[in-house]
Amino acid sequence: MPEHRVTGPDDALARAVALAQRGPVGGANPRVGCVVTDADGVIVAEGWHRGAGTPHAEAAALAAAAAQETALHGTHAYVTLEPCAHTGRTGPCAEALIDAGVASVTYAVADPNPVAAGGAARLRAAGVDVHGPLDPSGAATALVREWSTAVRRGRPFVTVKTAASLDGRIAAADGTSRWITSSEARTHAHGLRARVGAIVVGTGTALADDPALTVRLPADPSGTHTSSSPTTTARGDEQPEPWRVVVGLRDLPDDARVRGERFVHVRSHDPAAVLAVLHAREVRHVLVEGGPRLVTAFLRAGLVDEVYAYVAPVLLGAGKSAVEDLGVATIADAVRLHPRSVTQLGPDVVLVCDLSQEPVGSEQER
Amino acid sequence: MPEHRVTGPDDALARAVALAQRGPVGGANPRVGCVVTDADGVIVAEGWHRGAGTPHAEAAALAAAAAQETALHGTHAYVTLEPCAHTGRTGPCAEALIDAGVASVTYAVADPNPVAAGGAARLRAAGVDVHGPLDPSGAATALVREWSTAVRRGRPFVTVKTAASLDGRIAAADGTSRWITSSEARTHAHGLRARVGAIVVGTGTALADDPALTVRLPADPSGTHTSSSPTTTARGDEQPEPWRVVVGLRDLPDDARVRGERFVHVRSHDPAAVLAVLHAREVRHVLVEGGPRLVTAFLRAGLVDEVYAYVAPVLLGAGKSAVEDLGVATIADAVRLHPRSVTQLGPDVVLVCDLSQEPVGSEQER
Repeated sequence: MPEHRVTGPDDALARAVALAQRGPVGGANPRVGCVVTDADGVIVAEGWHRGAGTPHAEAAALAAAAAQETALHGTHAYVTLEPCAHTGRTGPCAEALIDAGVASVTYAVADPNPVAAGGAARLRAAGVDVHGPLDPSGAATALVREWSTAVRRGRPFVTVKTAASLDGRIAAADGTSRWITSSEARTHAHGLRARVGAIVVGTGTALADDPALTVRLPADPSGTHTSSSPTTTARGDEQPEPWRVVVGLRDLPDDARVRGERFVHVRSHDPAAVLAVLHAREVRHVLVEGGPRLVTAFLRAGLVDEVYAYVAPVLLGAGKSAVEDLGVATIADAVRLHPRSVTQLGPDVVLVCDLSQEPVGSEQER
Repeated sequence: MPEHRVTGPDDALARAVALAQRGPVGGANPRVGCVVTDADGVIVAEGWHRGAGTPHAEAAALAAAAAQETALHGTHAYVTLEPCAHTGRTGPCAEALIDAGVASVTYAVADPNPVAAGGAARLRAAGVDVHGPLDPSGAATALVREWSTAVRRGRPFVTVKTAASLDGRIAAADGTSRWITSSEARTHAHGLRARVGAIVVGTGTALADDPALTVRLPADPSGTHTSSSPTTTARGDEQPEPWRVVVGLRDLPDDARVRGERFVHVRSHDPAAVLAVLHAREVRHVLVEGGPRLVTAFLRAGLVDEVYAYVAPVLLGAGKSAVEDLGVATIADAVRLHPRSVTQLGPDVVLVCDLSQEPVGSEQER
């Protein structure tokens, strides 16, 4: 590695974030990056987490240093997430850093995982100089946003995608829907798939559209495949394909395109049951792509964290609506989303919205 | 007037556009501004059109010069619209400029009105040096966009406003709708009223909501009335209130708030008949505010030029849709709009879209 010097803690953490982004998304573990410098700020080791079952970022950095016979005594470690204090499939990183003799540890985000937390305290107790949380740009927080939510809630983070006309229709009266949105919007939505650990549709959608639910970009007659995926969470180089999940009681044909590796058919209509199945498979971020019945079930259950709403400047006047009966009787009970961003995609618009976590409608179950 | 010097034709025309914007919108005549300079670029006279029956911009500038006993022989006139060649309620401006002895006339936009056109040719025939059309910024074209369309089509320019949830609903299941959109969006939509010559609703909306259809901003509990009307066409200082128009067969109560000055009840369901009534009243820009039945009738008749679609990040799942059956049976027949702009308004978004002029749906009548 050529000598590379950081200008200070913010710069070291920015480098650690860039390393973390090489890791996979949507799975059991968060993306984490680690940079170790000497007293002059020269980087002497770095590492990132490459997915469940592989070393944590700190362990990867320590291993890289060992491979180069670099002593880390008295060095400074910068990590995007508080080092863990527990033994899982790998040993506790706090202990490993102590054993390596680092003088200080700076971390960007506190560990939200009650099982793994306590690393900062353990380091301090061993006499290591600990700084953090320190994330002025929010970049490290963004790295673990969905994963942190999943850890806190004990179920995967749920993103719902809708793609509808200005009058809220996802198909014309005869059921045709290709295409309401533009190729730019469809490409963007496909980029969304690259961020998640599972893509979920109902049997209705699976039977009607026979989707493959893969991350590869679809054949596109217009040929406009430029840019526009949600790039801050671009898929890492060790990223497995997302689970392809079909939900519902109906059988799928043997030649359904969705069948194959990492396919699962959840024979239930209960969104909580679907999430439990995926959580057990270590999925921490789920994309629900439809149809309206499934989207509505997730909304009614209060199990939606985020909505990507693609809106096409098209009027249909009839046809299936993007959501079904939510149990909203009056305007005061409307499901209000909170837009984080609005982006034009060719003629279309995507609103990326947060959702509060209460079940919606008048038939609340809790 | 203090001495004011223009730097060239573009600067003179920009000044003329600014003057034109003081005039009224939505009525029989376009907004026009006129600046007259001497050979050194010093402005010696200026004027703008203040509404039907008052002098045209050129005549206003000539009158201003006469009032100050300023001779205009050998001067240079800059006008946002080609001077007229016909005698209407006022005499032809081309003749008046020739009589004043101006050396040159530069105009930004050619006159689309077949009755009034020919001014440039008349000026040239009289030996005046004529330049134009010259509108590099598009500002002068924008001034007369709706008016020009109305002249060409022989009926008012029609803007449709919709305000709906992400799933295309304008009310909840019980009919309540206050408020789906934010105060920012409602204030913006109110600013739209200030641009038109008539505001049109159906009897259903008039009976349900009892709107006053005035340009005054509504009482608003949140008190956020900042900014955000479509300001490039801000209401001029001589602007009459728009006509308040209710369309449909049902009677309105005697105490309906819409009654009063410039109120008209068009007892028809035919959009073309409504526009004919308003065209005869010299309205050249109409805002159709709803409800869905009226909006749908205008769309089906192919009588919509522009849509302001306000979209709130709200889900309702049930309730009245923004548009009714358009006769669109299959996706290939969808009504596709062409967004000119997308603007965030608080949590909401407004898409301003152009619409091609063909009737929509499968039951085309021509």
